[in-house]
Amino acid sequence: MTARIGVVGVVGLGLMGGSLLRRLAVVGLPATGWDLDPATGDLATAAGLSVSASMADLAAGCDPIFVAVPSTALNRVFAALPPDVVVSDLTSVKQRVRTLAAAHGLTFVGGHPMAGTEASGFAAASAELLAGAPWVLTLDDDTALSTWLTVAGILTSLGCRVVPCTSAVHDRAVARVSHLPHVLAAAVTSAAGHDPLALALAAGSFRDATRVAATRPELVAAMCGDNAEALKIEIAALRRHLEHLEERLPDPDRLTEFFAVAQRVRANWPPPAGPDTEMALDEDLRARLLALGSGGGCVTRVGPDRLIAMVPDTRGT
Amino acid sequence: MTARIGVVGVVGLGLMGGSLLRRLAVVGLPATGWDLDPATGDLATAAGLSVSASMADLAAGCDPIFVAVPSTALNRVFAALPPDVVVSDLTSVKQRVRTLAAAHGLTFVGGHPMAGTEASGFAAASAELLAGAPWVLTLDDDTALSTWLTVAGILTSLGCRVVPCTSAVHDRAVARVSHLPHVLAAAVTSAAGHDPLALALAAGSFRDATRVAATRPELVAAMCGDNAEALKIEIAALRRHLEHLEERLPDPDRLTEFFAVAQRVRANWPPPAGPDTEMALDEDLRARLLALGSGGGCVTRVGPDRLIAMVPDTRGT
Repeated sequence: MTARIGVVGVVGLGLMGGSLLRRLAVVGLPATGWDLDPATGDLATAAGLSVSASMADLAAGCDPIFVAVPSTALNRVFAALPPDVVVSDLTSVKQRVRTLAAAHGLTFVGGHPMAGTEASGFAAASAELLAGAPWVLTLDDDTALSTWLTVAGILTSLGCRVVPCTSAVHDRAVARVSHLPHVLAAAVTSAAGHDPLALALAAGSFRDATRVAATRPELVAAMCGDNAEALKIEIAALRRHLEHLEERLPDPDRLTEFFAVAQRVRANWPPPAGPDTEMALDEDLRARLLALGSGGGCVTRVGPDRLIAMVPDTRGT
Repeated sequence: MTARIGVVGVVGLGLMGGSLLRRLAVVGLPATGWDLDPATGDLATAAGLSVSASMADLAAGCDPIFVAVPSTALNRVFAALPPDVVVSDLTSVKQRVRTLAAAHGLTFVGGHPMAGTEASGFAAASAELLAGAPWVLTLDDDTALSTWLTVAGILTSLGCRVVPCTSAVHDRAVARVSHLPHVLAAAVTSAAGHDPLALALAAGSFRDATRVAATRPELVAAMCGDNAEALKIEIAALRRHLEHLEERLPDPDRLTEFFAVAQRVRANWPPPAGPDTEMALDEDLRARLLALGSGGGCVTRVGPDRLIAMVPDTRGT
């Protein structure tokens, strides 16, 4: 059910694309990369990686191709890719990219590795960044299962945990656990910015709450702007949480319960891995993959006639 | 101007009191501790620390006395302390404690070490937790400078950076950099609590944004409840930040600027230490100490006729 894999292409060799190309090299999959910035390509070459002479060379010789460029550059790269090659991406918002890929007539499956650091650029890239990372692969009504399985097979061979879900479900989840935290980190940091005493007293809770505020502003702005509708829903939910908190401030027991709910969730996160289960590649696969993802599970290996899935052990929750 | 120091007493040997007693032992200051829970006292004795037989013994033999108990237990401990002994505390909200100490007629200076971990109890205590930590000592209209300097001298000999400010200014600052981050960590965690997919996708930004949500709920509830008025002001400020963010979502340049403001602040935090300066213990000292604190500075050493202060180097900000 999975297609034969050729040389894997990686367009864009910044933090994420560079880490992907390094990881492909570590596990021994034939792969080549390319970056718009020749200096970045030189860095990758100096690191012992294969780098294509041009975008056209890469597009002509690779299948599948991972596009690891900023979301603002996706349109230009998609225009240069052939329709019969499997294409995936690494951007943090999926509905917008799905629409764009369809407009270009690509054979597409959206992807999003849940890993990163506040650093950026090839110099910060490392194969270890992606080891064990959850990697969303979108499975929408118009996604061919064979395409999905091809890309999932590569990612699991890199040691990633492949999470199946629709583009819309992905975008709501990342607004909740990534984009909203970025917004709050920026707001907390800015609020303290004109208060030298507060900045002097700031300790562990501030350091951790604001770490991602050091991320490059244009990257954060792009992911929040691209996911504006889902982010607004999460901000509205946060406002309701803050109202509940304020109502409870005069009542120690109810206030403690507010924090106890979160403490139970956080103390059980991340949930331990549950046992491996096998899934046959049959006609129910699409529905079972989506149920796996919405339950917090992932695919850890793709074989010729079955795949291995893991559902987290949430008994502690 | 500073008083003669006797045996230092520490009431309450949990994470903070235990760390303080350990640190006093490491630097060789005579000190003894006591805890309401005999098992905790046994742990401290087994760690080679001096432990008093009773609260009354400690109160009769120590000066100054640090009270490191939960804010709900302060009233009971304060009632057992003599009025002529210097008393300080370690709780995270200062206006309420100041009022309580005055009601008991104590010779009091409020304190708050800006260090901690999500763990608690003597087992988690360590002398290193307090090394280099900022430690607020409140300097209110009714605080005797000699009392302030006595406690500041002990804390600087422990390697702490003593930050002078009024109780009200302290409470606003910690609402901003500690209590609000705790509230947001709980809200973000609870919002993801019923979404297994979101919890599976959660990575570094979620991990850091929610780390302090694992703190014991009753501790967080106590500090937020005790500082409710200042916390509400910070929540209102956060709401305005979120409104600004939502207005900017459709405009990439203005959205980038929202995150760029925070990025500049965070990239320059913590500010590097500036040069040491000397302060004579003269009649202007109170005003100069308060100016030092509001500028983000601290006292690093207290001598018989002068003290050494450090003002951070904010040129990068």
